Amino acid sequence: MKIAILLYEGMTALDAVGPYDVLSRVPGTQVVFVGKKPGPVHTDSHSLQLSVQRKLSDVPTPDMLLIPGGVLGSIAAARDRQFIDWVRTAHASSQWTASVCSGALLLGAAGLLEGLTATTHWAVQKELARYGATYVGERVVRHGKLFTAAGVSAGIDLALEMVIAIAGVEMAQAIQLFIEYDPHPPVATGALHTAPQSTVTLARRLLRQAALHETGHAVTDTLLKPFQRPIDEPPVEPVL
Amino acid sequence: MKIAILLYEGMTALDAVGPYDVLSRVPGTQVVFVGKKPGPVHTDSHSLQLSVQRKLSDVPTPDMLLIPGGVLGSIAAARDRQFIDWVRTAHASSQWTASVCSGALLLGAAGLLEGLTATTHWAVQKELARYGATYVGERVVRHGKLFTAAGVSAGIDLALEMVIAIAGVEMAQAIQLFIEYDPHPPVATGALHTAPQSTVTLARRLLRQAALHETGHAVTDTLLKPFQRPIDEPPVEPVL
Repeated sequence: MKIAILLYEGMTALDAVGPYDVLSRVPGTQVVFVGKKPGPVHTDSHSLQLSVQRKLSDVPTPDMLLIPGGVLGSIAAARDRQFIDWVRTAHASSQWTASVCSGALLLGAAGLLEGLTATTHWAVQKELARYGATYVGERVVRHGKLFTAAGVSAGIDLALEMVIAIAGVEMAQAIQLFIEYDPHPPVATGALHTAPQSTVTLARRLLRQAALHETGHAVTDTLLKPFQRPIDEPPVEPVL
Repeated sequence: MKIAILLYEGMTALDAVGPYDVLSRVPGTQVVFVGKKPGPVHTDSHSLQLSVQRKLSDVPTPDMLLIPGGVLGSIAAARDRQFIDWVRTAHASSQWTASVCSGALLLGAAGLLEGLTATTHWAVQKELARYGATYVGERVVRHGKLFTAAGVSAGIDLALEMVIAIAGVEMAQAIQLFIEYDPHPPVATGALHTAPQSTVTLARRLLRQAALHETGHAVTDTLLKPFQRPIDEPPVEPVL
């Protein structure tokens, strides 16, 4: 099974690496990192670069495609025809298609979420609605071969769900033990509905600071443009 | 605060990227990926490469050092004087020193765990004992400025603990919401003491297959040598 994980400027590293370190443990899978051109892309915090191995046109028909998010980067990527054409074409013949976090916006832009429930990072739930999807605040949402996951760390849960679908529950259990995924977060505000308003306010401030930081480092106009709005007026209206 | 995350051949990507996507969200932190030389290193599943930004000698005194694991790679790295000298020197002046997974072996090799309790990936608990540490199957173990975390995904919990120490609980809560860390694993075998024997057996088989795969791709003799033993006779004796 060939699994293509999309990399693009401004993505969030953990969105891709969480699923990678689960899915790559399944015997018989081959993970390939695809993007516009081989070589490093900057993730959203800018110090980490992940390497694209193959360009999109080299991997037109993966068995699985997985689209990570990254609030700023994904809004730009969802407006990029080259990415969206690849997503649409690859999905047409895939066995499995998945997004993590705001990677759902790319699935939406490719027309794959029209009329469906889906999940994404809470900060872009209104962006998701533009593509005809109904946001639900669940960890993972599945419609047949199509999976969407909530923000960032939800990619690990998503990937384990996919391992169950691909290789069975015993394999998922063994991989969970391999990566010692026995979460014990020392705080308990990981979901919008459990976080107090003060936490939501601070998280939104961090998102805006990240946007400012990112636009300060913007590599292309494409990446910058969608950010002019969020900085003045965040696209986010938390449900709280 | 300058945070140096060590990258080396054969490391596990999620060990570094989980903490990175937590710690890099703290305002005022700067994360730098250090290694033998600038450029990509192969992670243990081989398709993903992470980029070293600065060589070790360029970052001798980070405020925090964080050492990821990777079962095979870390055993080799813990025998590499260049890495161990850097860890020892950097720790001497650090505010915080941390390991994820079998990254604890590098702290051990640097003499930092002598006589202490520590945690690591369950598969290398006997390796850890060679360095005078007492393995405890906890998620995160802290002794003053020194933290060790359990395998792979435990780096996320570790990093949130460190955010509490560095920037307070409100910041940790906001970052938890930012990365939507509200784990809902679909299986429940993430710790050795909760996993049935059949899961442990399969996880050990996956570890051995990873070892075979990695030695097949071995970049250097250094990486290969410690593997000759595990392939014939795994270094792992699970407590189960």
